[in-house]
Amino acid sequence: MEFKVSKKDTYTLIEFNIDKPITPDVLQDIKPPEVDTTKGVIISGRGPIWLYGYLIHHYHPALWVATFDPRLGGGVVVMSHTPEVSEGDVIK
Amino acid sequence: MEFKVSKKDTYTLIEFNIDKPITPDVLQDIKPPEVDTTKGVIISGRGPIWLYGYLIHHYHPALWVATFDPRLGGGVVVMSHTPEVSEGDVIK
Repeated sequence: MEFKVSKKDTYTLIEFNIDKPITPDVLQDIKPPEVDTTKGVIISGRGPIWLYGYLIHHYHPALWVATFDPRLGGGVVVMSHTPEVSEGDVIK
Repeated sequence: MEFKVSKKDTYTLIEFNIDKPITPDVLQDIKPPEVDTTKGVIISGRGPIWLYGYLIHHYHPALWVATFDPRLGGGVVVMSHTPEVSEGDVIK
């Protein structure tokens, strides 16, 4: 599994790429990229819900966490520590 | 959106059912069922990743949280506060 990190003004975009089928045991030694926790994080990629679940929990210290939804064309905020961004907001 | 709660010995199974298409603004007034946080939680249902993301974060105080994967036939642990259960474990 590879991660691509793109630093934006208000968030870090974390894109994962899975080149072969993965099983849950990958979660035992996965090393997600470090981020600036004073900003948000948007997670993007085609993968199982449990991988997203792991990454969402991993980035819990960030200001907010969103998951990219291709149909909505943006990141949907699923948790936030700041009043400026709310759960359900779509970050384009 | 409806939730069904099933209490098991070591975890609570939370099954959601979406009867019509949902948009992220539902996260603003969603009311997930309360659970016993001294046990684990398994989340199950067909829905968008951002809904899972919200619920995973919501149940963060639980002993552990897993997402049900129909292909694996069990809940994949994505976060755990107990050494007895690890990320990547599959709870059948």
